[in-house]
Amino acid sequence: MSGRLAVVGLGPGGPDQLTAAASAAVAAASDLFGYGPYLARVSLRADQTAHVSDNREELARARAALALAADGREVAVVSGGDPGVFAMAAAVCEAVDAGPEAWRRLDVSILPGVTAMLAVAARCGAPLGHDFCAISLSDNLKPWEVVEARLRAAAGAGFVIALYNPVSRARPWQLGRAFELLRDTLPPATAVVFGRAAGRADERIAVVPLAEAAPEMADMATCVIVGSPATRMVERGPLPPLVYTPRFGEISS
Amino acid sequence: MSGRLAVVGLGPGGPDQLTAAASAAVAAASDLFGYGPYLARVSLRADQTAHVSDNREELARARAALALAADGREVAVVSGGDPGVFAMAAAVCEAVDAGPEAWRRLDVSILPGVTAMLAVAARCGAPLGHDFCAISLSDNLKPWEVVEARLRAAAGAGFVIALYNPVSRARPWQLGRAFELLRDTLPPATAVVFGRAAGRADERIAVVPLAEAAPEMADMATCVIVGSPATRMVERGPLPPLVYTPRFGEISS
Repeated sequence: MSGRLAVVGLGPGGPDQLTAAASAAVAAASDLFGYGPYLARVSLRADQTAHVSDNREELARARAALALAADGREVAVVSGGDPGVFAMAAAVCEAVDAGPEAWRRLDVSILPGVTAMLAVAARCGAPLGHDFCAISLSDNLKPWEVVEARLRAAAGAGFVIALYNPVSRARPWQLGRAFELLRDTLPPATAVVFGRAAGRADERIAVVPLAEAAPEMADMATCVIVGSPATRMVERGPLPPLVYTPRFGEISS
Repeated sequence: MSGRLAVVGLGPGGPDQLTAAASAAVAAASDLFGYGPYLARVSLRADQTAHVSDNREELARARAALALAADGREVAVVSGGDPGVFAMAAAVCEAVDAGPEAWRRLDVSILPGVTAMLAVAARCGAPLGHDFCAISLSDNLKPWEVVEARLRAAAGAGFVIALYNPVSRARPWQLGRAFELLRDTLPPATAVVFGRAAGRADERIAVVPLAEAAPEMADMATCVIVGSPATRMVERGPLPPLVYTPRFGEISS
């Protein structure tokens, strides 16, 4: 007997920021796996079981979820934002790749969500309006030299850069080093957006020029968007400025 | 008297793929602007007015929407996917930037959605599971040399690459040229995903090795995802393969 596994994106956090398909997948699950703060966002019924785990145990969580699905349960693994962006969908695929043959025959579905960079971008204009990239600053899982090479390549080629996992207690210096490196390539006035909890009650969005960007402006839950030389800022008096990257007229390379 | 303008992401297309906030913004609008096929996705009430325009008239549409909002109407501009990714949010910001002072005082909000690459990725696994970029192949609005420089930089630095606007009647050769160029840098077995109408009834997802990727496999509504050398494919017998980029163990640079 074989159950199902859904990997569900909860979006940036507000209850009106997830899709109807994601809500339905949460409601259909018998067992829900996830990092505590994400599971805390969904209201479970008495007949649903929550399996809470630590943020750093993604592969173990994926394996436990797959094992329960193989036992015939209706399992959902919840992720903040989109599960396909630096999150649980890749962990589930890895676990299937390395796991028992039976896991390859499971019905695995992935329900996308609004990932952090899209939510932050929407709150300040359209900084991702033209070519952009997303880079995880975590060097827990890849060498820091790879991060640096990607930052240089992206800034040099005129991509807007969204930084995920900018800082953590175990990784205090990486964001500062990234800003230093980007200041070698990008103009001091380049817009940098620090976005936290976009669309939630505790939202905090700040826009500063690259020259003033400091790692203390970010925490674990922040997504940082660094503009390209083409990115513009529209001052609006008492309203927050609009930050956008034009769809055309761009000749930087 | 001043109204409001909401730029609303409808997600990849299925009615259960937009957020509750986006649905509410559509319902609250007196006037809705958009490209015909996107406006056709929302059911309008008799008291709501649709302003349909062609896909290539983004800036004119943005100006018309802002003018109506400045007249005191509740205006929504709808976009497929996410409005901040190669879509209407940047056009609205541009129009504000270049427009009359009064437009800067308007209440402009942007409601994010699930953009095409996230929807396509979710249907085949987690190809965007690690560092990635999004590039528009359209050279209507930027020189083709910039596109080539970005493709080279991204492939050389180990980014997974999502290609938006891969082909159109006016741009028949660009995607083939992009594949040629990527074959110079990436292994022939690199997974390439062609995703169309992800999550809709007419969905079409195909996965081929880069060596076999051909421009005929895409149309205007396709999002193409080109893996990195780290991207893996998990064969699952009768089920479609899972394509994913591991969150760790990645040492390509």
